[in-house]
Amino acid sequence: MATQMTETFRMDERSVGLVETKSATLFEPPNELELENGMRFGPISVAYETYGQLTPEKDNAIFICHALTGDAHAAGWHSPESEKPGWWDDFVGPGKGLDTRKYFVICANVLGGCHGTTGPSSINPKTNKPYCLSFPFITVSDIVKVHSELVRHLGIERLLSITGGSIGGMQVLEWDARFPDQIHSAMCMASAAKLSAQGIAFNAVGRRAILKDPNFNDGDFYDNEHGPRSGLALARMVAHITYLSEDSLEKKFGRRLQHSEKLGFDLLRETEFQIESYLHYQGKRFVERFDANSYLYLTKAMDYFDLTNTYGSLEQAFSCGAARYLVTSYTSDWLFPTVQSRELVSELIRSGRHVTFLEFNSPYGHDSFLMEEEINNLERLVHPFLDQLYFVIRGETN
Amino acid sequence: MATQMTETFRMDERSVGLVETKSATLFEPPNELELENGMRFGPISVAYETYGQLTPEKDNAIFICHALTGDAHAAGWHSPESEKPGWWDDFVGPGKGLDTRKYFVICANVLGGCHGTTGPSSINPKTNKPYCLSFPFITVSDIVKVHSELVRHLGIERLLSITGGSIGGMQVLEWDARFPDQIHSAMCMASAAKLSAQGIAFNAVGRRAILKDPNFNDGDFYDNEHGPRSGLALARMVAHITYLSEDSLEKKFGRRLQHSEKLGFDLLRETEFQIESYLHYQGKRFVERFDANSYLYLTKAMDYFDLTNTYGSLEQAFSCGAARYLVTSYTSDWLFPTVQSRELVSELIRSGRHVTFLEFNSPYGHDSFLMEEEINNLERLVHPFLDQLYFVIRGETN
Repeated sequence: MATQMTETFRMDERSVGLVETKSATLFEPPNELELENGMRFGPISVAYETYGQLTPEKDNAIFICHALTGDAHAAGWHSPESEKPGWWDDFVGPGKGLDTRKYFVICANVLGGCHGTTGPSSINPKTNKPYCLSFPFITVSDIVKVHSELVRHLGIERLLSITGGSIGGMQVLEWDARFPDQIHSAMCMASAAKLSAQGIAFNAVGRRAILKDPNFNDGDFYDNEHGPRSGLALARMVAHITYLSEDSLEKKFGRRLQHSEKLGFDLLRETEFQIESYLHYQGKRFVERFDANSYLYLTKAMDYFDLTNTYGSLEQAFSCGAARYLVTSYTSDWLFPTVQSRELVSELIRSGRHVTFLEFNSPYGHDSFLMEEEINNLERLVHPFLDQLYFVIRGETN
Repeated sequence: MATQMTETFRMDERSVGLVETKSATLFEPPNELELENGMRFGPISVAYETYGQLTPEKDNAIFICHALTGDAHAAGWHSPESEKPGWWDDFVGPGKGLDTRKYFVICANVLGGCHGTTGPSSINPKTNKPYCLSFPFITVSDIVKVHSELVRHLGIERLLSITGGSIGGMQVLEWDARFPDQIHSAMCMASAAKLSAQGIAFNAVGRRAILKDPNFNDGDFYDNEHGPRSGLALARMVAHITYLSEDSLEKKFGRRLQHSEKLGFDLLRETEFQIESYLHYQGKRFVERFDANSYLYLTKAMDYFDLTNTYGSLEQAFSCGAARYLVTSYTSDWLFPTVQSRELVSELIRSGRHVTFLEFNSPYGHDSFLMEEEINNLERLVHPFLDQLYFVIRGETN
């Protein structure tokens, strides 16, 4: 069964090896971040990791925008004792999709997250207590503003590329629209210019599960050892279903039972079918690594994302930039179906952009962009895209 | 918005008019029902309604198997003050799909339900208290055994047809396999020979929401005015998403806001988007009419349904019967996709059955079989199917 997720530490020639998360403090008063809701907010600590070497010309940097529950640890191992490598280790490393022999790769935890970047579980320096729900309402735009500032802080004027899937792809689109001069290219995977009504619906169910958990306590639960664990697990369970395709669930689990060959006729046995057991396990694991308040803030940011609404039209959103685009979608992704990527691509082409688009024939659903099985295909697309662009840019600067 | 569901009482020539729910007591000791789990259970009260007139030959009866949260009240009005007619009123009545000028239509609440047929909220005559979780584990087969006995109780030897959608369609399939001599035909809509892994997954999430509700109290909540309302509402919200297609959600709600023209940047506003408001409303309404324990029992019965598992193979399940089949599916139904109906149809044909199959091009998702907009199409298929069969049968018996 797929519940055995532990990998053994290995340090082969395609691994970035041991890495550590660094931290930068940005937007210190009086230079607070101006949030989309009109408030000012700072200071903001940003957790980030980097892989590979920045060239003296600082022209080889690629920024990874992580998805909803990701973090700054995209590749490599935190220690030889780590249970698994970074979340996109299959894609980032020497000779991999984002080839760290050539490129300098950055990944940072998002604003509002819970893995080192300031979020609702962080200590508010004014009160010395966690922000909880006094943390301000944030949007994808706010997340991108922080990342953009981090890139400036690292002394990089222009990124070779930015990339991400799902809400990471939304960040890519927003970055291109808001800071077009900061990027040469954008790689947007399994994403869309706005979240669908169905996507909002699933997020709303997840949030409600958290809000109705008796241990939620209006978001002030950090000194309670439990917190809204059961609500957060439930939110993850329903979300997890949307990340996978029906076919992949059928192939992976079908109607197979977990503990027995025979049906138990027991109403309260919650993990009788393998698919139930898998979902429960996913919920349980998630609670160990994620903060329920962050989940509320970040799903809401996802719901709010709508390039058309922010910029008046997609055309206007894309009108300032000149970055080359790589857009990918996955046949079995029903959360961000290909039709949404096609809409993006049409509008990018209408705006005169250089666009490469590919719909991958993948059985794995929305999570395809993260799946080892699909990474080789992505790599074959990304390598020439980046290499060609980098060749052009180096030519221009020489 | 679609939240205004009240209809005004009207008694036109296509309505069955005022109807009332009747009750029969079956399986009285010592003739208890033998359940699939091996236990014996009885007595069982069955709530049912009938529409139209049974012929003296008793050859014109059609039985409706309702879906997960339906009830015996399929058509007509309980009183002029009723807020709405029966759940399939568009399909049952004089001149309608199931034409009550010709046919005698029966609908009964399922075993384990909460609308008149014995279920977990019923009083256990041995304790004078509600069964709660002492109610036995039930399956689709048990539900069908009760309906089958009701039909005998009504003095009907053989039904002209049985019909139902979703888990109602599962009952249709099970009925044909278990009591083949009791039916002349079977009309199975938006259903399948087994629930998919994805279907089990969504049901598991719904059940978990109920089980984790602090007011669930191990199922013993009937003297608590609240009960697990919030868990049950959440279960309904997630299920409701699966009943509709992404396209229909997009067209009906899109990203439109409910209360304002402008985004509120308020984390705790749970009904900002219309789709959120709609889902919350659906959850709230559902809690007023449905029992959380029944929801646990019936979703579990749905998960357990697997003709192949019960009968060894689909071929064996279909080998005894001779009933003609009408099978329908809907293009936008992703909970019971057409591929599952095709599988059924292939196996029925291999078993030498007379089968009519149609995939309707419908945008409304799984609930299409209930939608007024689709009922006319269904009617055009069902009329000749039933009329032809009835003609043949009357010829045979004359």
